[in-house]
Amino acid sequence: MTSEHGDANFYAIIPAGGIGSRLWPLSRADAPKFLHDLTGSGHSLLVETWNRLEPIAGENIMIVCGKAHAKAIAKELPTLTSDNTVLEPSPKDSTAAIALAAAILVRRNPDAIIGSFAADHVIEDERRFAAAVNEAIASAGAGYIVTIGIRPTSPSTAFGYIESGEPLEVPKAAHALRVVRFVEKPDLETATEYVDGDSHLWNAGMFIAKASVLLDELRANRPDVADPIEEIAAAWDTPHRAAVVERVWPTIPAVAIDYSIAEPAAEHNRLAVIPGDFRWDDVGDFASLARLHTHGRANVLATLGENTRVLNEGSSGVVVSQTTRLISLIGVKDIVVVDTPDALLVTTSAHAQRVKNIVEQIRRSGDDAVL
Amino acid sequence: MTSEHGDANFYAIIPAGGIGSRLWPLSRADAPKFLHDLTGSGHSLLVETWNRLEPIAGENIMIVCGKAHAKAIAKELPTLTSDNTVLEPSPKDSTAAIALAAAILVRRNPDAIIGSFAADHVIEDERRFAAAVNEAIASAGAGYIVTIGIRPTSPSTAFGYIESGEPLEVPKAAHALRVVRFVEKPDLETATEYVDGDSHLWNAGMFIAKASVLLDELRANRPDVADPIEEIAAAWDTPHRAAVVERVWPTIPAVAIDYSIAEPAAEHNRLAVIPGDFRWDDVGDFASLARLHTHGRANVLATLGENTRVLNEGSSGVVVSQTTRLISLIGVKDIVVVDTPDALLVTTSAHAQRVKNIVEQIRRSGDDAVL
Repeated sequence: MTSEHGDANFYAIIPAGGIGSRLWPLSRADAPKFLHDLTGSGHSLLVETWNRLEPIAGENIMIVCGKAHAKAIAKELPTLTSDNTVLEPSPKDSTAAIALAAAILVRRNPDAIIGSFAADHVIEDERRFAAAVNEAIASAGAGYIVTIGIRPTSPSTAFGYIESGEPLEVPKAAHALRVVRFVEKPDLETATEYVDGDSHLWNAGMFIAKASVLLDELRANRPDVADPIEEIAAAWDTPHRAAVVERVWPTIPAVAIDYSIAEPAAEHNRLAVIPGDFRWDDVGDFASLARLHTHGRANVLATLGENTRVLNEGSSGVVVSQTTRLISLIGVKDIVVVDTPDALLVTTSAHAQRVKNIVEQIRRSGDDAVL
Repeated sequence: MTSEHGDANFYAIIPAGGIGSRLWPLSRADAPKFLHDLTGSGHSLLVETWNRLEPIAGENIMIVCGKAHAKAIAKELPTLTSDNTVLEPSPKDSTAAIALAAAILVRRNPDAIIGSFAADHVIEDERRFAAAVNEAIASAGAGYIVTIGIRPTSPSTAFGYIESGEPLEVPKAAHALRVVRFVEKPDLETATEYVDGDSHLWNAGMFIAKASVLLDELRANRPDVADPIEEIAAAWDTPHRAAVVERVWPTIPAVAIDYSIAEPAAEHNRLAVIPGDFRWDDVGDFASLARLHTHGRANVLATLGENTRVLNEGSSGVVVSQTTRLISLIGVKDIVVVDTPDALLVTTSAHAQRVKNIVEQIRRSGDDAVL
């Protein structure tokens, strides 16, 4: 059951859905966050995600994305086959995306173990990542639904946390722990206790399980989601796919996998967590992007963009440019400047979360061309 | 000797020379400050200066400018004649510009009284301005070299000051005072004393005098400047102008009129000052521009530019745009954003003076296209 890539039954699923509105005007409806190179590697986050999973999953990587992005994704991932692409007619949140992929895969391979990994997160130290995923696959093989929780390095109030319990003693998964419960984004005091303690991990939204186990859990909790998903999956590899998708997809309730599967599974003691000791960030806003590139050092000005030209006198923060304009910054601290052909954003790390208010203002004004 | 425009011997001279480097990237070598609408009036500062002087000088307004700007200036001022245009082959500072105009005019009218007014300052209340100029003309008629000093409204450390003395009792110039001395830009403590006191005025660089008196003063102080100026002026309204200008102009020492005429004249008790009770600003940097448009109120965000589109969440300062890009500002205070097609500046009012360092950096790098 093992190949050169580890477990031959393992399939990685990459839901490539979110736009990343808090990274506007860099992220747009037609250029979502996962298509951007936010690390300066020369690759989009999507390609980095793919490259990180390929040593573990080989060619068994399935992308779930909106129809509007199919062309851009195919360009990024030339080896991606149509068999491994699920095009969503409309966004239905993470449960539909992951469960449909799982339901398609379990019909192709009843022993399929699936792992879902966001298309737009940043991970450093790929060996530790692979080690954690392999422990997660082993735990999934033992029947658990498994998540990988990141050991927190700061009292972040931007992430949800996972409270871990006793060791599970799963073969080939020495670090597997029972999940006690999920905790929503905490306040700073609570987050500080979590970092000082030993039992709380960041919820990075990674889920690994036997496809059959995952779908059973979904059916138990949300049959209204499971039923239409199964109906579409049954038609997927047949000539009826298009017709069934067109008829059934719009009826699927949109719900996050955290609520439909992960939290109930934790309550039922079916959820395991593998602690991950690698650098992880969801790069959810420009403060996070700045932190990623300045490594938290004050007085550093990070610049991103292929042709970015910056002159700086005593400024710090981050400049992202998609133009060739000369950008001059004087004496502005923790600044965020995002320079695109049709929109400019100037803010500070402290206000990075408010970008979504601006996006909301633009949406209300009907000026969708810049969104 | 008086016409509908006041004294028929009066000629206004507008040296349109400086680029306004501290207003880069708005002001450029090919688009100097005086060609910009910095007040939101719909007119360039040059046109506003012209319009302010026309009620006093009629058609007797002479522009001294660099050859590179002749075309743009002619477009701004369609009624400007070639007789009233002095084209400088190269910049030689204010003495050469004003003295050459004076020397040309005194040959056309030996009783000429000239007044020199910067092309790129902002003045509100044109009636008070005209009243001060008319008192200055009367004082010039009595033989003085005259300046108009602005009664300070704040302890500015960005301007030089004029210390005034006893009243001069000149007919038709009830407010004329002797100038005791010029004071360089003071520190804040000294500036505060000046504002609280009654005898210090801002030096706005306006000089009014009989052309003959001005040229005599120059000859007494700087014959090395006066001699080539006179040589060129003697040839000006002859067929030899071009040849003489080409030969002699490069030999003229570049010196500010403050040093060649005003300060020595003050020492010789020949300088008078008319206090001006109108709002004046040299708009020397973006802090000054922001002040002009926010009227010093915190929490106001001023925007300049014909097509400027700004979305603001809790920011203050000034945005100048020459593009149609959507500019979004979130939580940035006293910010200065200058958005042009090939260069972007982000700074704060507090750092506005440092723009010249950036310009110097660009000059050293050889990237003259953006200057």
